[in-house]
Amino acid sequence: MPARYIALEGVEGAGKSTVAELVAAELQKQGRQVVTVREPGGTRLGEEIRRLLLHSHEMDPWAEAALFCAQRAQLAREVVAPALAGGAWVVSDRSYYSSLAYQGYARGLGVEQVRTLNELALNGVVPDLVVVLDVEPEVGLGRQREPDRIGGQGVEFQRRVAEGYRSLAAAEPHRVVILEGGLEPEVLARRVVELAEER
Amino acid sequence: MPARYIALEGVEGAGKSTVAELVAAELQKQGRQVVTVREPGGTRLGEEIRRLLLHSHEMDPWAEAALFCAQRAQLAREVVAPALAGGAWVVSDRSYYSSLAYQGYARGLGVEQVRTLNELALNGVVPDLVVVLDVEPEVGLGRQREPDRIGGQGVEFQRRVAEGYRSLAAAEPHRVVILEGGLEPEVLARRVVELAEER
Repeated sequence: MPARYIALEGVEGAGKSTVAELVAAELQKQGRQVVTVREPGGTRLGEEIRRLLLHSHEMDPWAEAALFCAQRAQLAREVVAPALAGGAWVVSDRSYYSSLAYQGYARGLGVEQVRTLNELALNGVVPDLVVVLDVEPEVGLGRQREPDRIGGQGVEFQRRVAEGYRSLAAAEPHRVVILEGGLEPEVLARRVVELAEER
Repeated sequence: MPARYIALEGVEGAGKSTVAELVAAELQKQGRQVVTVREPGGTRLGEEIRRLLLHSHEMDPWAEAALFCAQRAQLAREVVAPALAGGAWVVSDRSYYSSLAYQGYARGLGVEQVRTLNELALNGVVPDLVVVLDVEPEVGLGRQREPDRIGGQGVEFQRRVAEGYRSLAAAEPHRVVILEGGLEPEVLARRVVELAEER
């Protein structure tokens, strides 16, 4: 089976990073090479952009979308594309589907507009499978370790993000799958691996 | 006459900032309110992005294009749009036409692709007049005060940028005008003001 690029998505505190680690471990048990990444960040430039995104003052929504896009293009070029080319699976905590849900849908820039921006910059280095962990926004926010500029937008904003993810899953069932985030992380991880293998 | 947004463009060392200052002074003599800006930069976020763009290590060309786009969206929202709305003329040292020439044409990302990225993010806050100061790349590079990551790409790159500007002027004569950069800065500034008034 060729290498796959799997992205975990969801609102703040949905359990993405825990499940991403377990997915990577599960794949490694099967003898696969795995590279794990997170967005925003994952490269030297990307970590500097992460700092601007999460800890600076307020910014224009399109500036925010373009900054997310910039760190992602760098990550695709420097890490994701070489990993896939070398036969490794890539497991990512977030992807450009975060931008579709957060900036496109919840901030109102338009899902198709934000998709255009990202698909131009990513040149086809996009996830084969996007799994959204669905939790109640209140539950997710309660779990958040370090609230940042974007996580600090409040529960109504998180609710719009969740709605954005649901509309993406409805529009692209071949790529975007929603799983009940309340399940045990080990159960979720096995299900993610099965979904990737089915594709 | 309604407020105009004028951008000065050209290769490194073409004399853009000198001419931009003289254009602003000329307009002020006519009793107009003027706001001058420069790219990348001009806002708190934009100056941080400027530092990443000009002084960091190599980066993916799309990451570079998206970073330029991010600082520009912030500048449009925070400075340019409010200035124009308040009746002030805006004189800018560079604009998204720099991205069309540098990233779109010279780096080979595609002028139309880079245009799409920027026009999405700028929401119509774009220059009414773009004046390209045409100088020989060798002359411009010789004049450069502090060579940066992009100015340090060498003369062949600058030559492609100049070619990019010429092809933009040929495609959009209603907006993009090339002036001989070897003329006296005062002569150039008066010509820029006349061109803006003709539009």
